[in-house]
Amino acid sequence: MNKIITIGREFGSGGRELGRRLSETLGYAYYDQEIVAEIAKRTELSEQYVREIEEHHTMFSYPIHIGRTLSTGFNSVVEQHTKIYGEQSRILREMAEKSDCVIVGRCADFVLADKDPFRIFVYADLESKLARCRAKAPENEGLTDRELKQKIAAVDKGRAKYCAFLTGRDWGSKLNFDLCVNTTKLVIKEIVPVLEKLFQ
Amino acid sequence: MNKIITIGREFGSGGRELGRRLSETLGYAYYDQEIVAEIAKRTELSEQYVREIEEHHTMFSYPIHIGRTLSTGFNSVVEQHTKIYGEQSRILREMAEKSDCVIVGRCADFVLADKDPFRIFVYADLESKLARCRAKAPENEGLTDRELKQKIAAVDKGRAKYCAFLTGRDWGSKLNFDLCVNTTKLVIKEIVPVLEKLFQ
Repeated sequence: MNKIITIGREFGSGGRELGRRLSETLGYAYYDQEIVAEIAKRTELSEQYVREIEEHHTMFSYPIHIGRTLSTGFNSVVEQHTKIYGEQSRILREMAEKSDCVIVGRCADFVLADKDPFRIFVYADLESKLARCRAKAPENEGLTDRELKQKIAAVDKGRAKYCAFLTGRDWGSKLNFDLCVNTTKLVIKEIVPVLEKLFQ
Repeated sequence: MNKIITIGREFGSGGRELGRRLSETLGYAYYDQEIVAEIAKRTELSEQYVREIEEHHTMFSYPIHIGRTLSTGFNSVVEQHTKIYGEQSRILREMAEKSDCVIVGRCADFVLADKDPFRIFVYADLESKLARCRAKAPENEGLTDRELKQKIAAVDKGRAKYCAFLTGRDWGSKLNFDLCVNTTKLVIKEIVPVLEKLFQ
């Protein structure tokens, strides 16, 4: 069976960087934005639309009775969302079957539970996430600290909603992970050779 | 400054074993039960009494107004508890100043916060803790699964109470640790060489 590492992460905690570096060190495939592109291709929806749905999970803010009409009737929005999430699960499974890999986000730990992935969650305190967002993402330049904090909270709220919808679990609850790494004081470059040893 | 590793742990998760093995591998001092013995010596209370107080934190079940009389008057029980916790803090600081060390429990991560300890929390799912308790502690032989689960819950409740009293924090909340290790699927012997790399 291929070795699968899944990375859950708080926005701004450096989870993506950790995943990418770990995949490079281990020589594993790395999947993150590639998943969006592949979903877009297969569903014939635009990448931007897929990303929008994935990030904001707007379906879950609809009144619950709309969600419940899924089994008896469809509207096009619900249909598109269902298509995206279904395709995503299929793609995750295909990736896991292809080779050893690191998959960031998308509740891959849950979707691939039968493949016994090693489940990492990356988190940090708010100040540290703020600093990382400032340092790494030029698109945050125009935001005040308050706005950036709101952005961080909004992204993580979307992830929590998606996780609750798909898995029925509390997002980020440590019991759903094998290892939780706090990047507040740790330097990601320095953790990677440590984590590498887990998979040798 | 000495390297300090603190280990918080759920009862039955193997945190103590992880701490001991890590200290042996790193050549650090290891403190756990030694703290009880030292407190007993300094306070002239029996080891058994100190352990009882440390494990059950019975003071914290008293009505809050008894706690508040601390500043204006004493009763002997409150006085003894205060003595134990005060002595414990002093001992933790002395240990941290003596050499590199691993300290298990006792909210050492909080007490020694100014010494920038590396804070590990060890946890596991209930079934795995149950199995570990069965395998490691002969004194649990006479207990049914239900009784053993109650024991696990009671010990951790005591730890949570103590943590809340001393630190005002939620016990086991991942944000208060640098690394949280789930021993449900991981073999402790195999994690130690991985963690070792963090301190080299």
